[in-house]
Amino acid sequence: METGREMKGRGEFGLIGRFFASLGASREDVVLGVGDDAALLDPAPGHQLALAVDTLVEGVHFPASTDPFDIGHKALAVNLSDMAAMGADPAWATLALTMPRHDAEWLARFSEGFGTLARRFGVALVGGDTTRGPLTITVQVGGLVAPGRAMRRDGARPGDLVCITGTLGDAGLGLRLALGEATLGEGAEYFLDRLNRPTPRVEAGRALATIATAAIDLSDGLAADLGHLLEAGGVGATLDAARLPVAPEVKRLARERPWWRWPLTAGDDYELCFTVSPSRRGAMERALATCGCPVTIIGTIGAEPGLRITEGSTTVSFEERGGYDHFE
Amino acid sequence: METGREMKGRGEFGLIGRFFASLGASREDVVLGVGDDAALLDPAPGHQLALAVDTLVEGVHFPASTDPFDIGHKALAVNLSDMAAMGADPAWATLALTMPRHDAEWLARFSEGFGTLARRFGVALVGGDTTRGPLTITVQVGGLVAPGRAMRRDGARPGDLVCITGTLGDAGLGLRLALGEATLGEGAEYFLDRLNRPTPRVEAGRALATIATAAIDLSDGLAADLGHLLEAGGVGATLDAARLPVAPEVKRLARERPWWRWPLTAGDDYELCFTVSPSRRGAMERALATCGCPVTIIGTIGAEPGLRITEGSTTVSFEERGGYDHFE
Repeated sequence: METGREMKGRGEFGLIGRFFASLGASREDVVLGVGDDAALLDPAPGHQLALAVDTLVEGVHFPASTDPFDIGHKALAVNLSDMAAMGADPAWATLALTMPRHDAEWLARFSEGFGTLARRFGVALVGGDTTRGPLTITVQVGGLVAPGRAMRRDGARPGDLVCITGTLGDAGLGLRLALGEATLGEGAEYFLDRLNRPTPRVEAGRALATIATAAIDLSDGLAADLGHLLEAGGVGATLDAARLPVAPEVKRLARERPWWRWPLTAGDDYELCFTVSPSRRGAMERALATCGCPVTIIGTIGAEPGLRITEGSTTVSFEERGGYDHFE
Repeated sequence: METGREMKGRGEFGLIGRFFASLGASREDVVLGVGDDAALLDPAPGHQLALAVDTLVEGVHFPASTDPFDIGHKALAVNLSDMAAMGADPAWATLALTMPRHDAEWLARFSEGFGTLARRFGVALVGGDTTRGPLTITVQVGGLVAPGRAMRRDGARPGDLVCITGTLGDAGLGLRLALGEATLGEGAEYFLDRLNRPTPRVEAGRALATIATAAIDLSDGLAADLGHLLEAGGVGATLDAARLPVAPEVKRLARERPWWRWPLTAGDDYELCFTVSPSRRGAMERALATCGCPVTIIGTIGAEPGLRITEGSTTVSFEERGGYDHFE
């Protein structure tokens, strides 16, 4: 046991000072950034504050071989995805970085990945803590949203359409490729990118904020995450397997049976799953077209709890050990 | 490698739902707490937002044998101490908990320690993430402070008095007791408590906000933390060893020579170190008396950079490998 003082003391003024002091976007609402006991921020008047936090652990959330650039990107991206799911504007991030040793090269790459994404979405890094220990990265993002505009998980009503942005299962295939559990000649890079450098649907979330009835981002897999949304709303859903937006490679390389089990359970998609009243379908499609975001209607909300999948003339109840088991 | 989905998925709705959903104080400004993609908060108009984040790692910041109640307490306390150092009112916390396995008993104790302190200071737990991995706890606290009132590190001016709340080195002795490196018949409990359950000086920080010229909390030891304050202000300080508020047990059991090196370098005090103009000395003493917080004037700020210690007729330059080395 040691107090960690050496690294902590030098941490704030060495590691953070050097790599993190001016990482990300410059924002006028940052009164005081990295380097004091706390950051001081001046939120725009008349807004609510959205706060999200997510942790990535080496060997659990990413293989040890992952490029530090990608780790930096993803640690921020998963939190920006939470902002997207709320329809909030991301503004500030804090970074708690636990690493086994001071590694300047690793830090430089990590910072590059984190900073590039932060600048792209106008997010300032305003504070952090560096400690010594097994590689663990916790990022918190704060964002702003006008009162009453935030998308919650609990608003889905029977008859609503179930929609998702983008495609399902790409990151799941990317992970199997990264681990050598699957091979793919051309196109592997695309799926690895979808695993390592997900693009949070921030603009889409903002565009949907007053249109969707409920929303969640896909981190744990569609079945689990949609399950949370259904549970929160006290409703169920029926999805059409034929409509699931899945790359041919994912369908072909699925080891699971039926094939759709994989894209429904593979995590790390960081797409948005949301519900919308049929009367707002046109508004939703126009809003997402404006920000160039693809969307697919994959099913319908029903009053009966649980998740059902229709394939051809057969409808089966989707069962998975997960957050919504007790509905089965 | 695995995706961590199982624990993450169940985490949000199992661990967090059960232990963390209503932990801490109830606050009217929490629009949406634990259980959605992000928390939604309604900060009081006309305030700035203070954000702090700190990580505790098992084996680095606390021994593996530490009571989970104390870990929960301390993980929050170190962040509340940052709020105190800014003069901010703590309001909301998020908790990122990485633990090797689901351990209900551990979680119950941890939550009790965290929640008891949170309620005491009116802090609501509004979000979190639970992941599997080596025991690491990252807490972020958000607080509110009126514009222009926050205490920064960089305001100390030559002639200012250097003050600290409470006593120095108690937690350092507590750590040696916990590790069996020192023994003490009666009174051991007090020092272990000072190590494991520090009381953040939140009221004192609020009281000092418009009086102190600069402030920092003591986490890494007075020499290192005051060093940060001196560096930020471009000044130096001379401390009087005879005035250091140190328990007789700490002085007696110091292995370091001179004896004051230990209380100046032992971390985990979580007292406030601040500077004040001599003309505000009376106001400072009255403000701290009102909240029952002991304070000691231990030295003076000077124009010459560096930290000097006077003992009797001798003044020595304090040298330690630390953030302000380059002044030496």
